[in-house]
Amino acid sequence: MVQKYGGSSVADAERIKRVAERIVETVKESNRVVVVVSAMGDTTDDLLDLANQVSPLPPARELDMLLTSGERISMALLAMAIEALGYDARSFTGSQAGVITDSSHGRARIIDVTPGRIQQALDAGHIAIVAGFQGVSQDSKDITTLGRGGSDTTAVALAAALGADVCEIYSDVDGVFTADPRVVPNARQQPRVSYEEMLELAASGAKILHLRCVEYARRYGVPVVVRSSFSQRPGTLVTSEANLAEENVEQPIISGVAHDTSQAKVTVTGVPDRPGQAAAICQTIAAAEVDIDMIVQNVSAPGTGLADISFTIPKSEGPTAMAALEKARPTLGFDRVVFDEHIGKVSLVGAGMRAHPGVSASFFGALAQAGVNVEIISTSEIRISVVCRDSEVPAAVRAVHDAFELGTDEVEAVVYGGTGR
Amino acid sequence: MVQKYGGSSVADAERIKRVAERIVETVKESNRVVVVVSAMGDTTDDLLDLANQVSPLPPARELDMLLTSGERISMALLAMAIEALGYDARSFTGSQAGVITDSSHGRARIIDVTPGRIQQALDAGHIAIVAGFQGVSQDSKDITTLGRGGSDTTAVALAAALGADVCEIYSDVDGVFTADPRVVPNARQQPRVSYEEMLELAASGAKILHLRCVEYARRYGVPVVVRSSFSQRPGTLVTSEANLAEENVEQPIISGVAHDTSQAKVTVTGVPDRPGQAAAICQTIAAAEVDIDMIVQNVSAPGTGLADISFTIPKSEGPTAMAALEKARPTLGFDRVVFDEHIGKVSLVGAGMRAHPGVSASFFGALAQAGVNVEIISTSEIRISVVCRDSEVPAAVRAVHDAFELGTDEVEAVVYGGTGR
Repeated sequence: MVQKYGGSSVADAERIKRVAERIVETVKESNRVVVVVSAMGDTTDDLLDLANQVSPLPPARELDMLLTSGERISMALLAMAIEALGYDARSFTGSQAGVITDSSHGRARIIDVTPGRIQQALDAGHIAIVAGFQGVSQDSKDITTLGRGGSDTTAVALAAALGADVCEIYSDVDGVFTADPRVVPNARQQPRVSYEEMLELAASGAKILHLRCVEYARRYGVPVVVRSSFSQRPGTLVTSEANLAEENVEQPIISGVAHDTSQAKVTVTGVPDRPGQAAAICQTIAAAEVDIDMIVQNVSAPGTGLADISFTIPKSEGPTAMAALEKARPTLGFDRVVFDEHIGKVSLVGAGMRAHPGVSASFFGALAQAGVNVEIISTSEIRISVVCRDSEVPAAVRAVHDAFELGTDEVEAVVYGGTGR
Repeated sequence: MVQKYGGSSVADAERIKRVAERIVETVKESNRVVVVVSAMGDTTDDLLDLANQVSPLPPARELDMLLTSGERISMALLAMAIEALGYDARSFTGSQAGVITDSSHGRARIIDVTPGRIQQALDAGHIAIVAGFQGVSQDSKDITTLGRGGSDTTAVALAAALGADVCEIYSDVDGVFTADPRVVPNARQQPRVSYEEMLELAASGAKILHLRCVEYARRYGVPVVVRSSFSQRPGTLVTSEANLAEENVEQPIISGVAHDTSQAKVTVTGVPDRPGQAAAICQTIAAAEVDIDMIVQNVSAPGTGLADISFTIPKSEGPTAMAALEKARPTLGFDRVVFDEHIGKVSLVGAGMRAHPGVSASFFGALAQAGVNVEIISTSEIRISVVCRDSEVPAAVRAVHDAFELGTDEVEAVVYGGTGR
């Protein structure tokens, strides 16, 4: 089994000791345990602060060298805490664990995992502690970091390479909920969701698992359990639809309502209404390495031959996108660019949507009844998303959650205490 | 050229930037520079604190994994600071730099240096920044630390492996002085000392270079310059007597007066006065891995057949030594053990002693005139050491320093400002 503990789970010596106890409990049940660990609490931010103090633009190779010391500290401490409990543990850097990446410092991709030393440690009866978030580049042998979601991805990649039966991702949340419990007090935890649903939830703003980690798990068929290191609750199993079908459990139509207020809307007005203009704008944004999420072309005002194009991007990428558009203005020939950061996205996700055509009608009906004005719509096979004002997001989430009766399972409400109605 | 910067030289972002500037100045003069760096200021102590919080007895392998993150942080920051000045720098861990050691975690010995990646970096016109104090074990490929004096030794070992012309060791002291300037205000800096003198000074309590580093430098003939990163003073060159003779500089008879108050005296009384008893006591102490420095057997009281044996050991090893002696009491058959930690050692070191037989007479004469009571004496070819009360050490050092007129070079006194008389 592979377990991954996030930064909040190992934030100080006390928490590290508690995690060590949990690992030892697991070892007592099943012999072979590999643990992937993130840097302690704020270590990464502290190191970034130091980097910014010595350099206005720290070189990526050295930033990776610096940041990887964070996991080195937490993994060594965790191994010590386990040994203090009388069990053998050995810590390994990403490089030692055989996490081979490309050379894109700061956002390297795993291209191979050769966990020979981890196998040896397990064969010797040791608990292997592996640094998350890091690897070594195949070409230059330089130390790399995997970027956001990197530690979760390390855990899933090791689980795949080692043929582990399950990969447990520990953080400070109990699992996947039908909505963010801070917004919807009666949100309910889902015992199971499919990879596809988890991907849509992650892409829609659920912070539980990073998109990349779920993609990796789906590709290699690694069952992932999301659970809290601060409780003994069983968490949420993320696995294939086929597995869920085999288990013969009745899957709910809807897995949850996600929301995201980290995006901004960019509207380009007065765009000549001819084929290829939307593509040209998208290409301009993509060339600046900014990801576009949703996009809509408004109807042209009759007779003007001009249209408006709106799209959403991460708020933090606003300056980059705006600069790229201004630079391309002579070629694109638009009127002006409006940057609106007071938007929010509300998404309904569920594999059961495919078989239930009434879902979107109920979704939009609930939003209308709550007085939410929809600005952009996008859908996938198992998801509907809308953009509205950010101030309307909580009401929209609650209205949709209620309309689909996602919080009504009273038995679950007792089990998961406090969050049921 | 190899330069080594200690923890106080890179204690914070400001100091790291100043060290970066100094390195860039060196690069402007001579093309190829390798920099060995220690962990920032108190990092190592902070990490040890953390280790003790999670484990009563942290395992040595994991302690090494933990502590090596300290240099990883300082070296990455230093590389960033250099790049911010427009020069290319690449940082390398001990393992990446080819520092191969045995498997003695916490006090590993360098058994080979294979600096292929450092050569490549230099050939590419980069400044190579290397983590001091650490290596990788030949057998297990585990990360090791070199123990005390490890960073200085790394620098000298790399200088030897790379065939560097000189190894500069930067700290917060200006070089080798004729005495500790805090005790003798008119102490004078020595422009040159031989490896042999430096070894004797290091063994006699001078904190400037670790014994081990000097031994390594002597074995491979690496010229070492000890200097301060906080000034532009030229420091002290440590090299072979042959080199000093070749340069045709007139070497002073005496290189300096060293003192050491970190030792304690153990007296074993009532030891049966027969051959092999001193050896048996020494073996008992050595088996407990405690280093004996000086030893003296007192004259037996007539008719008793018993003698007293006194020896000095590091104060910190007192409990270990006492326990070992008590355990061996039935075999050794002594009366009792007295532990005296209020002693100090004063040593006079100089290669010129060999040719000047009057030195010891003047030494003891100066001590007598200062009213210092000598308890133990030990000598080598180029050193005389005595043990006295620790309270008498400052007076003893000043008396000897004056007797040999070590502080009278007025030209030097002006150059080194403030410390001359």
